[in-house]
Amino acid sequence: MSQEPSPSTQSPPKGFTANAVRAGIRGKDRLDLGLIASEVPAAAAGVFTRNLVKAAPVLYDMELLKSGRARAILVNSGIANACTGETGMEHARACGKMAAAAAGMETGEVLVTSTGVIGEFLDLSCFSAHMDELAAGLAPDGFERVARAMMTTDTVPKTAARTAVMGGVETRLLGLAKGAGMIHPDMATMLAFVLTDAAIDAPLLRELLVRGVNASFNRITVDGDTSTNDSVLILANGMAGNHPPATGDEAASFAAALNSLLEELALMIVRDGEGATKLIHVRVKGAASDADAARAAMTVATSSLVKTAFFGCDANWGRIIAALGRSGATFDPNRTAIYIGNVKLVQNGVATGGDAESRATNLLGKAEIDLEIDLGAGPGTAVYHTSDLSLEYVKINADYRT
Amino acid sequence: MSQEPSPSTQSPPKGFTANAVRAGIRGKDRLDLGLIASEVPAAAAGVFTRNLVKAAPVLYDMELLKSGRARAILVNSGIANACTGETGMEHARACGKMAAAAAGMETGEVLVTSTGVIGEFLDLSCFSAHMDELAAGLAPDGFERVARAMMTTDTVPKTAARTAVMGGVETRLLGLAKGAGMIHPDMATMLAFVLTDAAIDAPLLRELLVRGVNASFNRITVDGDTSTNDSVLILANGMAGNHPPATGDEAASFAAALNSLLEELALMIVRDGEGATKLIHVRVKGAASDADAARAAMTVATSSLVKTAFFGCDANWGRIIAALGRSGATFDPNRTAIYIGNVKLVQNGVATGGDAESRATNLLGKAEIDLEIDLGAGPGTAVYHTSDLSLEYVKINADYRT
Repeated sequence: MSQEPSPSTQSPPKGFTANAVRAGIRGKDRLDLGLIASEVPAAAAGVFTRNLVKAAPVLYDMELLKSGRARAILVNSGIANACTGETGMEHARACGKMAAAAAGMETGEVLVTSTGVIGEFLDLSCFSAHMDELAAGLAPDGFERVARAMMTTDTVPKTAARTAVMGGVETRLLGLAKGAGMIHPDMATMLAFVLTDAAIDAPLLRELLVRGVNASFNRITVDGDTSTNDSVLILANGMAGNHPPATGDEAASFAAALNSLLEELALMIVRDGEGATKLIHVRVKGAASDADAARAAMTVATSSLVKTAFFGCDANWGRIIAALGRSGATFDPNRTAIYIGNVKLVQNGVATGGDAESRATNLLGKAEIDLEIDLGAGPGTAVYHTSDLSLEYVKINADYRT
Repeated sequence: MSQEPSPSTQSPPKGFTANAVRAGIRGKDRLDLGLIASEVPAAAAGVFTRNLVKAAPVLYDMELLKSGRARAILVNSGIANACTGETGMEHARACGKMAAAAAGMETGEVLVTSTGVIGEFLDLSCFSAHMDELAAGLAPDGFERVARAMMTTDTVPKTAARTAVMGGVETRLLGLAKGAGMIHPDMATMLAFVLTDAAIDAPLLRELLVRGVNASFNRITVDGDTSTNDSVLILANGMAGNHPPATGDEAASFAAALNSLLEELALMIVRDGEGATKLIHVRVKGAASDADAARAAMTVATSSLVKTAFFGCDANWGRIIAALGRSGATFDPNRTAIYIGNVKLVQNGVATGGDAESRATNLLGKAEIDLEIDLGAGPGTAVYHTSDLSLEYVKINADYRT
């Protein structure tokens, strides 16, 4: 794990500070409690797990965000505060209250997020003992520490930055994310925070966030599992001084920057997928509809047999076509083509021959692989991003809690 | 791999013989070509993969079974004859024709099945060179050899037997199956053949087969992948001499024996799942409907995170509840209970405490595990059978073709 701060955190959006401390949550001596704060109240929006089982902090934040405003995000790793019942809700409220008091804010201004083991209770004394230290250390150079404090099975901290121009004014966006397992469309055991000094009203902010998440975090998969804690939060504090955009068109530059930022964070998560040795872009075109393309791409991207074949550098396209066949997409197998990089492996549903396979096999040795599937059935397209399924994935997950 | 013949093949149904030879398919020196024959034409039915991509022999058999009659089943391992286009169809027809000629039957009486690598073409010379030897060796004690010839990544041959009484006459059922990976509801890369000397008309035979498969092969999963070649075939040659049952009621004993036989074969497949160290029965009750129960059970049974936790003997119920939450089943997490064997791990959505977890952890060391989930939402129930996800699964599938 590199200790060098990422360049993306060097120039954070105006008015945001951050800090992280070692709070001893789950008994580990590591950065595990982080706080991000805005000098002034910010427009805020969130997108949360669609899992029926939602962690206490998710339920807490969903309620809080009805106001469309927030000033801070508290995050802990180690324990997810999920499946903890009414006690868990009380713990989420207590954490928010402690952070607000320490940072001089209203309780309703602090979003609370947790990630880690499900079903265990937070020890509030870890929070109370370190909250003042946490708030006192808030600084513009603290984001890298927060990115580290969010990590669970992640091997690298994940941050990215963009700039956007609105009404002639440059605004900055900074993103922080964590996630490596339980990664799947409709999110997963991941958290992502986006901070911006842009002025943008909460309803439009929310609309842009939902659109961006659908094209990024909802297009990645590591293991097909989703979690109880997934949250993407955005705070826009307006300190860049731009005039708030009235329409999506006026926010086009911001939306493009946001989408690009979210995609970069999402791909960082797949690249750091538990045990992953490869990032695979599954692009489906020629589907009867975009929905069919998404079904086909997702089924291929989540197939254990396809993912182990990629791990083994085996251009086993039979597994790809078998996954397509069970995806629910409507197509004629006899019109299907499959490419690895620029190598056409399959044409009209049958192999193009041994030379193509050996060239494709060479490409599978790379860390980033393009798999393209043409279903020959229409104009539908979709992209999913996935990782391979390695021995290390099994090792990590067979004894995560020990 | 034990070389002892299974007791189940000692008294095959009347009038059936079998044999298998080393045909050198895919260049391997192993039993890889089998033939099962009935002395007289038999009522026949089949259930096939629902994968949109169907192998040539599946398409061939679906057509042939419209007659409701057959006399023989040819089976090869090594190459699946899937994704082989019109050439593959010609190969399937040629294999059926060769086997019929060698066994003195009509071409339309021989069902053809293949399992193995997708996308490669059969070498017909392997079949023509060994077909006479194969037919000449047909004998009542040849079923064990056929069960071995069907194997791919299977580590044990799979056979089971039952008896049933119809109209006071005892009839016998013998089942043969193969399958270890690409195992999932709606079948998988598995083949199963049931032979019986019962007299039973094709329409009723088909009805009983479909019902039995839904309760057995459509309730197992190893890796969530389904294949292009899955087939369950049944031949009933009537040589037991019973009066054909006119209704399902009259066939109750037969149906019970068939269901029990199919379940035994299905569980053999999960137990021999690629890399499996454990057989896990996922029982869901208290669901709003049977369909909801099936969704919940299947999602838990296919979750990579749940399956790796079972491999690691980790009673990580948080992963189970997270899988339930994304299953699409409607329930209140705060009313959910989870049991491992007789240990209640979760009540009303929260952990019952550390002692229960350590007792459950002990149970996870066993080769067969009962996981019961009560959703507390209604009368719906369902059972799925799955395996754990081990290091060996990844090793097997990362270099299956090498």
